[in-house]
Amino acid sequence: MRLALGLLPFLAVGGFVAARSTASPNVHVPVVAYPDGYRAWTHVKSTMIGPSHPSFATMGGFQHIYANPQAMVGYRTRTFPEGSVVVFEWLEMRDSAGAFREGPMRQIDVMAKDPHRFDSTGGWGFQRFVGNSRTERAAAPAPAQCFSCHQRLKKDDLVLSHWRD
Amino acid sequence: MRLALGLLPFLAVGGFVAARSTASPNVHVPVVAYPDGYRAWTHVKSTMIGPSHPSFATMGGFQHIYANPQAMVGYRTRTFPEGSVVVFEWLEMRDSAGAFREGPMRQIDVMAKDPHRFDSTGGWGFQRFVGNSRTERAAAPAPAQCFSCHQRLKKDDLVLSHWRD
Repeated sequence: MRLALGLLPFLAVGGFVAARSTASPNVHVPVVAYPDGYRAWTHVKSTMIGPSHPSFATMGGFQHIYANPQAMVGYRTRTFPEGSVVVFEWLEMRDSAGAFREGPMRQIDVMAKDPHRFDSTGGWGFQRFVGNSRTERAAAPAPAQCFSCHQRLKKDDLVLSHWRD
Repeated sequence: MRLALGLLPFLAVGGFVAARSTASPNVHVPVVAYPDGYRAWTHVKSTMIGPSHPSFATMGGFQHIYANPQAMVGYRTRTFPEGSVVVFEWLEMRDSAGAFREGPMRQIDVMAKDPHRFDSTGGWGFQRFVGNSRTERAAAPAPAQCFSCHQRLKKDDLVLSHWRD
């Protein structure tokens, strides 16, 4: 079950990976801020989509999950306090005879906990930033799409990954 | 060239991965301390040895590199100050139709910069800790073996990995 949950992002957003279009900020939808300095946050875990995976062309590579200090409280208690931010970083990969290294950035997916601003999506804001951009927000997946799948699994405050002790 | 250097640990220590024997601390050899809390340090990068790699059975899985604050100065400047510690964490992997997730810990390899204590190995102490143990030190590779290969490549203060900007 843990495997299935861990792989959810690969399944849930697969249909949207190729979408590079961007949306203008909608004043009616609260905006998720770019997570400045997230690479200095705690690295929770990594996964990788390899060449034998059916979605390799659009999703192949490394996925690294980073958590800010508030989110690390959540990873310990499974209740994430306001201010928690989790970043799911997608990198392409390079294959050297079965030894894989990181390639260019595909995008980052951000979850930010603020029950007041994001009450319509379970207290979490969801946003994808395209490539290395700090400002270019992907139109898809829309926050409601992210929320719908996380909510369906209703797992531990909507955060699907786990900290390895 | 960067690829070749990035993959060095896979080549250099391959012959020693299976060695699970341990050595008693030798009073004549300075001891490298276990890097407490390294998983909260900065995650520098990851690599992975996949199922198609010839050394998959003994080395397959994820390799995560973590750096303490002093080592992060070194990653920026390529000159690593005293107190720098770099941890190379080896995890097995689990394969689910080409989607890979982290498995159990194989070992961690530690590099600690202290020119006074480790003057015979380029100012760096080298130590492998077995599995999840904080006290079980692997007998192989010996510090001199680690140093010999890092020294041969003589790259940027003996640290072979790079920070991705």
